[in-house]
Amino acid sequence: MRDIVLGEFFGTMILILLGSGVVANVSLNKSGQKGGGSIQITIAWGLAVMIPACIFGSLTGAHFNPALTIALALNGSIEWASVPFYILGQIPGAFCGAVLVYILYKDHYDATSDNPELVRGTFCTAPSIPNTFRNLLSEIIGTFVLVFAIIGFGNVDGAGMAGVDKIFVYGLIVSIGMSLGGLTGYAINPARDLGPRIAFAVLPFKNKTDPNWGYAWIPVVGPIIGAIIAVIVYNFIF
Amino acid sequence: MRDIVLGEFFGTMILILLGSGVVANVSLNKSGQKGGGSIQITIAWGLAVMIPACIFGSLTGAHFNPALTIALALNGSIEWASVPFYILGQIPGAFCGAVLVYILYKDHYDATSDNPELVRGTFCTAPSIPNTFRNLLSEIIGTFVLVFAIIGFGNVDGAGMAGVDKIFVYGLIVSIGMSLGGLTGYAINPARDLGPRIAFAVLPFKNKTDPNWGYAWIPVVGPIIGAIIAVIVYNFIF
Amino acid sequence: MRDIVLGEFFGTMILILLGSGVVANVSLNKSGQKGGGSIQITIAWGLAVMIPACIFGSLTGAHFNPALTIALALNGSIEWASVPFYILGQIPGAFCGAVLVYILYKDHYDATSDNPELVRGTFCTAPSIPNTFRNLLSEIIGTFVLVFAIIGFGNVDGAGMAGVDKIFVYGLIVSIGMSLGGLTGYAINPARDLGPRIAFAVLPFKNKTDPNWGYAWIPVVGPIIGAIIAVIVYNFIF
Amino acid sequence: MRDIVLGEFFGTMILILLGSGVVANVSLNKSGQKGGGSIQITIAWGLAVMIPACIFGSLTGAHFNPALTIALALNGSIEWASVPFYILGQIPGAFCGAVLVYILYKDHYDATSDNPELVRGTFCTAPSIPNTFRNLLSEIIGTFVLVFAIIGFGNVDGAGMAGVDKIFVYGLIVSIGMSLGGLTGYAINPARDLGPRIAFAVLPFKNKTDPNWGYAWIPVVGPIIGAIIAVIVYNFIF
Repeated sequence: MRDIVLGEFFGTMILILLGSGVVANVSLNKSGQKGGGSIQITIAWGLAVMIPACIFGSLTGAHFNPALTIALALNGSIEWASVPFYILGQIPGAFCGAVLVYILYKDHYDATSDNPELVRGTFCTAPSIPNTFRNLLSEIIGTFVLVFAIIGFGNVDGAGMAGVDKIFVYGLIVSIGMSLGGLTGYAINPARDLGPRIAFAVLPFKNKTDPNWGYAWIPVVGPIIGAIIAVIVYNFIF
Repeated sequence: MRDIVLGEFFGTMILILLGSGVVANVSLNKSGQKGGGSIQITIAWGLAVMIPACIFGSLTGAHFNPALTIALALNGSIEWASVPFYILGQIPGAFCGAVLVYILYKDHYDATSDNPELVRGTFCTAPSIPNTFRNLLSEIIGTFVLVFAIIGFGNVDGAGMAGVDKIFVYGLIVSIGMSLGGLTGYAINPARDLGPRIAFAVLPFKNKTDPNWGYAWIPVVGPIIGAIIAVIVYNFIF
Repeated sequence: MRDIVLGEFFGTMILILLGSGVVANVSLNKSGQKGGGSIQITIAWGLAVMIPACIFGSLTGAHFNPALTIALALNGSIEWASVPFYILGQIPGAFCGAVLVYILYKDHYDATSDNPELVRGTFCTAPSIPNTFRNLLSEIIGTFVLVFAIIGFGNVDGAGMAGVDKIFVYGLIVSIGMSLGGLTGYAINPARDLGPRIAFAVLPFKNKTDPNWGYAWIPVVGPIIGAIIAVIVYNFIF
Repeated sequence: MRDIVLGEFFGTMILILLGSGVVANVSLNKSGQKGGGSIQITIAWGLAVMIPACIFGSLTGAHFNPALTIALALNGSIEWASVPFYILGQIPGAFCGAVLVYILYKDHYDATSDNPELVRGTFCTAPSIPNTFRNLLSEIIGTFVLVFAIIGFGNVDGAGMAGVDKIFVYGLIVSIGMSLGGLTGYAINPARDLGPRIAFAVLPFKNKTDPNWGYAWIPVVGPIIGAIIAVIVYNFIF
């Protein structure tokens, strides 16, 4: 249990440090890489998952995502009793990763105080066109692809033998981001959105906007629904 | 047979969800990733093939492409009797993937009603300069490279042992897209073009343009010709 | 010998089809991917080498490059007697690949007749700042890195066992292009430059410029010198 | 010892040739790839590490970085007695790599004499917003991720067996660059910054700016601190 909490905590912290980091890096005023755009964001999020997955995979399975944890419990891959320990590591880890990004980019956040929505966007996701049904569906389908594929990667003979499955995971995150990311910002992970949103809520900013709590349930509930459907459909097909 | 139809159906659906998805994502008004351009499109199409290829490879061989299916039957890799079952999964799968993209991006399609050709372009391919001979040749040569390489990847010792061949397939799709994609949009797959074109034809859009049926035979016939030539040339050389 | 000539011919043809193809694809007027820029060009050239390397590696060793062929003969990896057969496949293969690009992009070449240097640039390389000494040095150092690394990749235990060495080759070509490509267009291969230059010389274009024969010796001689130095330095260190 | 000095020298020289090379390539006036931007820079730096890591890994372990060398000595992976020999190869290697970039891009440096800060930026790093505490912290955290991940990659079963770990290293460098690079230019390596800075100081330039020695200690001290913390935290968790 200690390994799960600690591994998921540090893994998710690194995930958000690198993931929220890239959004800050390409968005905030005066950043040396401002303007990198969606290709840089989606590639870097893929790596933000792959790097800690390589480090912590042998310790915890490297979920970093409550929706994936629930799916793998439903699927029988992990015990239900360990689910709370996973989540106990994931959400505080995501929170701390976001705080690290804040500390590192503090001067750049100050330089971007003219655009508080942009600042918030480096922490948590938001839909490009608000629409409860469709935004929820986007998170459901994005997470469906995530979980369905992660389970399905087990079908590739020998991919786990030489670490190639870690490259597949990288490609999967990039793929979901590049193909569906413009809808809601592809949270596809309750911890990825909620932890940084709480961090944004408690951290001080010049000219701060609200954390948009009205939207916050969608990137929590959508991914969990999508993950459960993925397990059901997978077990129907295979 | 059930496995082939089901696997090819769901695999091709995911392929088109992610493949048409990226074109919608970088093209449609108000998308959070509008402007991603040809690099994002070509990388994401490569992943759109790789992800379901990893999941369904062990079940069906992961063709998702009638031209490839025909080539592999010609080559003796699969039985001719199974070809109809493959295609029966592929074209409806592509249709359903395109419908999913429509549902997800519905609000963005509405916001792009000023540009009906752009909307159609998120479903099916079109030539940058219409020219029947040259457009057909583009699809023939693009699919020749696709099928020739997929058969040829079998020459890499051990690549199938650890899943590295899946990364080659990713690179192959990206390569054809990046090098030849500006000609006709590189359908190189009858199902990839026909399924979404039918979806476009039957779905409602504000200010809709025609599905350009006059062009539709080229991305069907060209890939089949190219695939057959690839098998013949491959067997001449090797 | 038949295998070497045939394999190098078709491999180099595909290399140039995809390599000159990407330059045409992102440069020529009316191409659907015009404006892809240096990232697309360098990634696609990496794939343009990797794809035929996977297909033909087991048949010929997949040189596609007279400078590499000479280096491997010097190094004792292949017999000197087979060198002419390699080159006999490589230069005509490069020529034919360039002719294929011409046929595919003919309408786009016509649409770009206002910029004959751009048209030539889709066939053969040119320096960004002409300077005989420095341009020659650029080709020497670029090819030094190419050959030194290809020989050095043999030091990675097991990389050849699962095809991962093919991904290294991809990365190597991308690396040289991204880091040194803006100097002379990184021919780093006499066949890659000479074959398409001959094709440009003999093919008809509206408003055609000269093939710049005065520069043509640099991407032939530079790579051969760089390749020889690479073998010498490698054998000094290892 | 001869192998360590020689291997680290040539490896770090190639690292800087390709790494400083890409910055010159996308920044300097008249370069054929001017404008490639942060995506090209970060991908190419990843390859600039991966290529020599493949070549020299079996000879020296392929550190190319005094901070990593110190971490691995602290961790017991190498002997403390060999540390000076590593550094003796690394800093002169980085210096020579920068001199090579200078020679290759000399005409382009002349063409960029209107922007001396840009010229210096192709050699050594600089913060986007100067702030001693935060700049130091950026280098500490960037190097923490680097060293923590490199040690952690050892947890991926079999990744070293087929060379896949080299691809992880590539991804790691790209990740740090894409997510944190806009802060201080991600030196994360004392040799990478100090060697080229010395080269910049001694080389002649038209309209030359100072080498900013006041900042030079940060990319030396920060990485060493970050590397030490990484070893401590890693050993606490695992």
